[in-house]
Amino acid sequence: MSKKDNILIIGAGLCGSLLALRLAQRGYTVNVYESRPDLRTTDISAGRSINLALSDRGLKAMRLAGVEDKVKPLCIPMFGRLIHDIEGNTFPSNYSGRDNEYINSISRGELNGLLLTEADSYDNLTIHFNKKCNGIDIENNTARLYDYETKIETEVKGDVLFGTDGAGSSLRKSYYLERKFLFSYSQNYLTHGYKELEIPASAEKKHQISKDYLHIWPRGDYMLIALPNLDGSFTVTLFLSYEEGKYNFNNLTTEDTIKEFFATQFPDALALIPNIADEFFNNPTGALGTIKCSPWHYQNKNVLLGDSAHAIVPFYGQGMNASFEDVTVFDSIIEQYEGDWETIFKVYEKTRKADTDAIADLAIDNYYEMRDHVANPIFKEKRAIEMALEKEFPNDYFSKYSMVTFKEDIPYHTAMTKGRAQDKAILNLIADKKIDTNEDLSSIFKKVQQETEAILKNDMVAGLK
Amino acid sequence: MSKKDNILIIGAGLCGSLLALRLAQRGYTVNVYESRPDLRTTDISAGRSINLALSDRGLKAMRLAGVEDKVKPLCIPMFGRLIHDIEGNTFPSNYSGRDNEYINSISRGELNGLLLTEADSYDNLTIHFNKKCNGIDIENNTARLYDYETKIETEVKGDVLFGTDGAGSSLRKSYYLERKFLFSYSQNYLTHGYKELEIPASAEKKHQISKDYLHIWPRGDYMLIALPNLDGSFTVTLFLSYEEGKYNFNNLTTEDTIKEFFATQFPDALALIPNIADEFFNNPTGALGTIKCSPWHYQNKNVLLGDSAHAIVPFYGQGMNASFEDVTVFDSIIEQYEGDWETIFKVYEKTRKADTDAIADLAIDNYYEMRDHVANPIFKEKRAIEMALEKEFPNDYFSKYSMVTFKEDIPYHTAMTKGRAQDKAILNLIADKKIDTNEDLSSIFKKVQQETEAILKNDMVAGLK
Repeated sequence: MSKKDNILIIGAGLCGSLLALRLAQRGYTVNVYESRPDLRTTDISAGRSINLALSDRGLKAMRLAGVEDKVKPLCIPMFGRLIHDIEGNTFPSNYSGRDNEYINSISRGELNGLLLTEADSYDNLTIHFNKKCNGIDIENNTARLYDYETKIETEVKGDVLFGTDGAGSSLRKSYYLERKFLFSYSQNYLTHGYKELEIPASAEKKHQISKDYLHIWPRGDYMLIALPNLDGSFTVTLFLSYEEGKYNFNNLTTEDTIKEFFATQFPDALALIPNIADEFFNNPTGALGTIKCSPWHYQNKNVLLGDSAHAIVPFYGQGMNASFEDVTVFDSIIEQYEGDWETIFKVYEKTRKADTDAIADLAIDNYYEMRDHVANPIFKEKRAIEMALEKEFPNDYFSKYSMVTFKEDIPYHTAMTKGRAQDKAILNLIADKKIDTNEDLSSIFKKVQQETEAILKNDMVAGLK
Repeated sequence: MSKKDNILIIGAGLCGSLLALRLAQRGYTVNVYESRPDLRTTDISAGRSINLALSDRGLKAMRLAGVEDKVKPLCIPMFGRLIHDIEGNTFPSNYSGRDNEYINSISRGELNGLLLTEADSYDNLTIHFNKKCNGIDIENNTARLYDYETKIETEVKGDVLFGTDGAGSSLRKSYYLERKFLFSYSQNYLTHGYKELEIPASAEKKHQISKDYLHIWPRGDYMLIALPNLDGSFTVTLFLSYEEGKYNFNNLTTEDTIKEFFATQFPDALALIPNIADEFFNNPTGALGTIKCSPWHYQNKNVLLGDSAHAIVPFYGQGMNASFEDVTVFDSIIEQYEGDWETIFKVYEKTRKADTDAIADLAIDNYYEMRDHVANPIFKEKRAIEMALEKEFPNDYFSKYSMVTFKEDIPYHTAMTKGRAQDKAILNLIADKKIDTNEDLSSIFKKVQQETEAILKNDMVAGLK
């Protein structure tokens, strides 16, 4: 096949629009079909997370597509977590011991719009909005597209078809239902759901709490977080069980119970959220699911990228970054095997699958860590030691969080394996009183390194991954 | 609800027929619907594994239902693995250091038939054959049943409905497709499939190789196993990749390549299998999949048991035992909460889920162990040490395999956690030359215990399960 390959992309979300842009830059003829209206001209944020954390893996992909400079002005740097206790006291907990490492709060809509506008500038790329994909024939590479405006369903055919249509992917559904091959598939839900609320800007259009942090109200069984927006507001997300515990989504059904819940658990947040009950009733409750599958492609015809292949829970702030990194990795494999799509698809999954599985598992780990461990003394001590090590040895020590978030050239799977061993080493050195915070940092660093290596070696001998 | 509850059971396989029997013994009115004809009068073994390993968890369930004495005569004890190398040399590897611990080869059909006959003896229980379930309405507890003889579909309704219809369960399909609740679900396939072959009995109706072992021909990328039947034959199973490696199911398509494969890899087995190519071509290739899901029930109405809730790969010989153990556990929970089905279903899953997840994961581990580790020196040394420990300390030392297979009162999850730590301890003690086979066994035992405890403690401190 030649560069004149006609490419169909289903879904113009964050991953689809970046992929489309990059394939257009490579000279392919690209047609993108999106079920929703153009978000640059219509407000369609209802029920969706309206800001996200953009970090180094995502920025690397922006650089690849030549848009990093345009993305930067949309970013609000967050240097750490600001933990709010039940009395309203706050405690900062930086993400890194290095000054230049931070994550960015960014509007999903603004970023998506920017990518669409960039994509629009290519003559060989067309975006079709309001076209809902009603099904894909994976053998013939045809998609049935229903036009919400004309009410007519048409069929389009591509040489190669990409499913970037998110967690509810129609291409993945075809893989599952058509049974043309053994399709390994999992969807796993947490017992918690989430609901978005808003802390509005002050009358002076300013942020009412510090915009330099990701705010977090950890309460064990439930948790509130808040990320800043450019307009002075914060998007707040409540994570809460559907049916367990004293407070849950099933039993918070009256204005009184909702107010009591916030007044006793998040009093400082409640003071900043007007009409809490209205927001609570009107905003949808979202599910928190992890999706994994394999294979990601069918023959040389079609392939899944982004959330359609690997939806993850939001607790590591890596969902968007992982999807953008998919495009970076995919692009590097096109570079090697251009013209041979089947090889590209195979090598892509072989290269990438362990990493997307790893970030999915890390995100689940963080669900527990954010709820519980941030308030646990031994985990706090570990965090303090790691901050000190990163500050003292900025080129040599990297916590698991730093490897995942700031070291875009370390694959997720490597970051997970090394990071988990390192965490286990430090926690056990603390528990066994083999290190303490008054000790010389070089001595601590050496012990952590030795213990980490011993753990990795022992796991290897036992045949564990 | 009273004991007069009308119970519908979909599927009269091993789990369904045992469950039906037990519920009839408890006095419920039970109707069982099975899509296949009565296997006591029809040969329907085509394509199914025709013998299985019955061990202590399964036998405990037989005891509960009062049929252990009738099952025992169907059993052929296997005391260990007999490993066949590529030159045809054999090496025994016992399952336990205790003389009274062994697993049993048993015919699936004979055992299923025995359970059906026992069930038939209850007036309050009726088994309906040739009734295929075409769908279940989980809200109304109705099943659409197509009768293969009359060609008519009818609808039946129960107070409580059980899905014991195996890996392709129609009840589980309804849970997945009806989307009445968040249904976590996974299906994961190995890259290998399997095919059954036969070593016939000798002219004198005798076994041609020892019937006291599970025979195994481990070859790294593929493997052959054989279990004895009462009629003198062996059921042989080939585990082979679909598409990877020099030999695979996709490329073994001619008589010549099949014969060459067996002649070079399994020469002693080939000598015992007449018409290898015919068998290879005529017998289906089966997939090896693991299925997990949650929740297992809907309200107080219906519930999944056995393979329909948790299909596993066959490499630990625990699939049937786990399904039988489901009935044991379920029965003990009925005992506590009889009359309150919703509580029974909830407590059952809460009690049981971690254990069925554990045996699923252990079975995958054994897939790698059986192919590779049995030929790996360090794993061989570990096995030798464990046999010696079990022989010397029969009441105190239990290998992971022994806990899973012979200690029916240790839950699978406990056996997995302790067993994995113990394996890791022994392997690392060997690798670090901290124990050797000439050492005093009491000293080895003490070191293994200490190291195992240290591993479990370190995992706990790090928050690992």
